[in-house]
Amino acid sequence: MSNASIGIFDSGFGGLTVMRAIKKILPKENIVYFGDTARLPYGDKSAETIQKFSFENVKFLKNHGVKLIVVACSTACSAALELLTESFDIPIIGMIDPAVDYLHGKIKEDAILVLGTRRTILSGVYQRKIDQEFPKNETIPIACPLFVPLVEEGFFDHPIAELTAREYLAEQLKIKIDVALLACTHYPLLSPILQKIFEKDTLLIDPGESCAKHVAQLLKKKDLLNRSGREPNYQFFVSDDPEKFKKIGQIFLNSSMPDVELISLSEYTHTCQK
Amino acid sequence: MSNASIGIFDSGFGGLTVMRAIKKILPKENIVYFGDTARLPYGDKSAETIQKFSFENVKFLKNHGVKLIVVACSTACSAALELLTESFDIPIIGMIDPAVDYLHGKIKEDAILVLGTRRTILSGVYQRKIDQEFPKNETIPIACPLFVPLVEEGFFDHPIAELTAREYLAEQLKIKIDVALLACTHYPLLSPILQKIFEKDTLLIDPGESCAKHVAQLLKKKDLLNRSGREPNYQFFVSDDPEKFKKIGQIFLNSSMPDVELISLSEYTHTCQK
Repeated sequence: MSNASIGIFDSGFGGLTVMRAIKKILPKENIVYFGDTARLPYGDKSAETIQKFSFENVKFLKNHGVKLIVVACSTACSAALELLTESFDIPIIGMIDPAVDYLHGKIKEDAILVLGTRRTILSGVYQRKIDQEFPKNETIPIACPLFVPLVEEGFFDHPIAELTAREYLAEQLKIKIDVALLACTHYPLLSPILQKIFEKDTLLIDPGESCAKHVAQLLKKKDLLNRSGREPNYQFFVSDDPEKFKKIGQIFLNSSMPDVELISLSEYTHTCQK
Repeated sequence: MSNASIGIFDSGFGGLTVMRAIKKILPKENIVYFGDTARLPYGDKSAETIQKFSFENVKFLKNHGVKLIVVACSTACSAALELLTESFDIPIIGMIDPAVDYLHGKIKEDAILVLGTRRTILSGVYQRKIDQEFPKNETIPIACPLFVPLVEEGFFDHPIAELTAREYLAEQLKIKIDVALLACTHYPLLSPILQKIFEKDTLLIDPGESCAKHVAQLLKKKDLLNRSGREPNYQFFVSDDPEKFKKIGQIFLNSSMPDVELISLSEYTHTCQK
């Protein structure tokens, strides 16, 4: 079982920033990545629809015999993680708890900003957890729906991205901010722009890194670290346009990628109980 | 049969600008609208995936006993219209032919601009038809992937939309343009911005209007116009988040909307033959 792969899913490309972090601290692990590119983006869709999609994605990864699943998408975590962990008999790791734990020691007395998709912000999960852990700090959630299409269009370090960030953050740029939590796996690619418009001592937090650390701790605790000594194997599956995924995905992953396989989710169709 | 509804589908909201045009010239017709909001947007996805989605959407509308179907989405027309008209025994009207026909009398000697999603532009269907009809004019296709999320974010008349348009059209703003064809049903909402940045005598063409005229001609020719004399009935169905659809949709439709019904497409699942 310890030689089995880590499974990762996201609506599309963003989760590759999490995979990058996992590869860095767990360079011997095999990884199966699934990007649900036929149905992306998840950020503006309803919780019920995201739950349905997430169930199908987990079923697909389980079918590949993975030993652990990472929901590398804050939107899917906010809408579906609790349901997923209740419904499947496999460790399923999300982005939210590790990111909030990671804030300890980094918070002073000023505000904590949470930047995410509309669904993530509406769910309130980050805000509730941060308020529990840091009741003396003000938590400010901001939905930034255009950040994902801007990143996917390749406008990371571009005046349009800067103008959009200044629009979304107009009020918050007037006050002191301790940390800005980038609560969507696409957003770390906007770090240069965000670091430019925030004050220098505002810390940008990429939840991919804390998630990767949590995965490493859990695999060690469960004695599931891969000890085969072989070169790791990386497999990529998508529900649409494998060529485009490979082309754009390499930017997110910051390394080359083998061929990507197109799959149909129809055999994993799931209807959530109301 | 003449009292049956006109069926319209789109990936989401954009097709409502076409429905608005149809309501205007056919005020007595009943209309069933389906927005595939769970899987929007279509614009950046593969032709195969859009074909699969379009088949499912047509099956859903046919199940409602419609007399004619309008594919109110240039992306779906470019990827799937030919296949749909070959596969179903019901009149299916697209956006492309009526829009190109409508250009006659409006073209002088300068360039014709086609603005669309990445999939529409990649397909080349608008360009090929325009080149056939207007071989002496230069046709310039421009993919504008951020226009759809900008419109859905409500940034119609906003500096970010203007900066984005100036970025996509940088080269074309230096030359003479006869007409700019807004080959995506979201784009008419950006007309104020586009008219501002183009020269005054550049004509913006909204294919929704020509599509509506074509629908009216076809219904008349087939003697299918609704002569019941009753108030028309409008029904709206979506695959995700009916409340959000109603809220945003009323802006696109430019009138109030009855309650929107959520449906599951799982019973219409379609696998395209390779």
